[in-house]
Amino acid sequence: MQIDSSLRNNPIGIFDSGIGGLTVAKVIKEILPKEHIVYYGDTARLPYGNKSKETIIKFAKEDIDFLLKFNVKVIVSACFTVSSNAISELRNFYKIPIIDMIEPSINILKNLKEKKIGIIGTIATIESGSFQKYVPKGIKVFQKACPLFVPIVEEGFFNHPIGILAASEYLEEFKKEGVKTIILGCTHYPLMKDTIKNVLGDVKFIEPGYEAGIFLKKLLEKNNALSENEGKFEIYLSDIPRKMNEILNIFMGDRIKYTIKKSTD
Amino acid sequence: MQIDSSLRNNPIGIFDSGIGGLTVAKVIKEILPKEHIVYYGDTARLPYGNKSKETIIKFAKEDIDFLLKFNVKVIVSACFTVSSNAISELRNFYKIPIIDMIEPSINILKNLKEKKIGIIGTIATIESGSFQKYVPKGIKVFQKACPLFVPIVEEGFFNHPIGILAASEYLEEFKKEGVKTIILGCTHYPLMKDTIKNVLGDVKFIEPGYEAGIFLKKLLEKNNALSENEGKFEIYLSDIPRKMNEILNIFMGDRIKYTIKKSTD
Repeated sequence: MQIDSSLRNNPIGIFDSGIGGLTVAKVIKEILPKEHIVYYGDTARLPYGNKSKETIIKFAKEDIDFLLKFNVKVIVSACFTVSSNAISELRNFYKIPIIDMIEPSINILKNLKEKKIGIIGTIATIESGSFQKYVPKGIKVFQKACPLFVPIVEEGFFNHPIGILAASEYLEEFKKEGVKTIILGCTHYPLMKDTIKNVLGDVKFIEPGYEAGIFLKKLLEKNNALSENEGKFEIYLSDIPRKMNEILNIFMGDRIKYTIKKSTD
Repeated sequence: MQIDSSLRNNPIGIFDSGIGGLTVAKVIKEILPKEHIVYYGDTARLPYGNKSKETIIKFAKEDIDFLLKFNVKVIVSACFTVSSNAISELRNFYKIPIIDMIEPSINILKNLKEKKIGIIGTIATIESGSFQKYVPKGIKVFQKACPLFVPIVEEGFFNHPIGILAASEYLEEFKKEGVKTIILGCTHYPLMKDTIKNVLGDVKFIEPGYEAGIFLKKLLEKNNALSENEGKFEIYLSDIPRKMNEILNIFMGDRIKYTIKKSTD
């Protein structure tokens, strides 16, 4: 992947099916505070996780087309469903480098020392097998789609009996098998970490969003493409959801300043 | 509302943001077995319940435009969010009669004998106050948006500890206040009836989908527009979701025969 160094002060474009990718955008901003972030969340059409591959590709292209209007220097697909189902089609279609949510974690996966690993995500991500295929043979993989985790996080029920009960239900096999390392294969899941620990005890998490931030930092350094300015954090959404402030507060907290606009205004 | 009697053997068009409206379509087919049903579910863009009014109107128009291609004699908005947020705009825009999920229950609401009534639905439906405004003064109204009920139903967790815990959480005030009559203001909620009874004891449900079916039957009779043929049940979806068969089985059971197609094929 190559980034044109003359674009160094241009934004990083990050997209997701909705608000969830802000966990990725936020960690990227923490790792690279000088970068100008333009985030696009397709809230009008979320979730992508149970849609067909064909529809996922179509929507992802529209998301990228929106970001390209900002002359971004690199694109980050913060959406695990897109990263798992559409990334090769997108890379064949666009010249701009596209960072996904899988590749930055491959080295960690290939060098796993554990005997067992758990992978959780949306149905589409789990069915794609996109993390599993990098886990060395000999390591036993347990996978589970956890569709309720996203609405539970958005309802603010992650540290709540409903969150704990859903985690107990979905992670029953992980518990029985003593799985102690888990890949959080969905944007919302970092917010479920405490709940998962509540159910499984002390577990180690692999967070692909964080790994993507580290990967991006190295890529920008290598290409002499780090921003020299103090960058903004702009959020564009295809629809302004009800209870937006409550949801944004769950995902962004109050440490990072940002602006928010409807993409069609 | 007038239906052209020469169109009597044309289909009834029913739309919803997704699969949920099939609870309405199914009850209409049970009440009117000879009618030809064309159902359109906008699964590519569901849910509508947390979207803005502007987006809801735009999507509903696209749903209706799809159904008009089948020369339907009447439209049913099975979507409570659309019925609560967009119906007057749609009726101003289209000539065809549009049955919504509110109006057919107005008589029941106006003649309520209970002292207390509970209304549950999506955030958009509850915020719209569309049921509440027909409840006579003197009857105390308790309203609660229950966003987790939809994903819980679609996960098949309605008769399950997660469904019960979510119902206990959302309906805590109903229980404390002894609410014994509840309007099920969302397509998915008829599937939560047993779970709600588990939490609240013996309650009476007002089911707007069923009331809409009775309303439609009377309207067709009055206009001499009842179908004379044995009608099909056609389902069109803007996206074929993962686990479609499991989800269809939850909503349709196996008594009614139907066909299913992607709307863009």
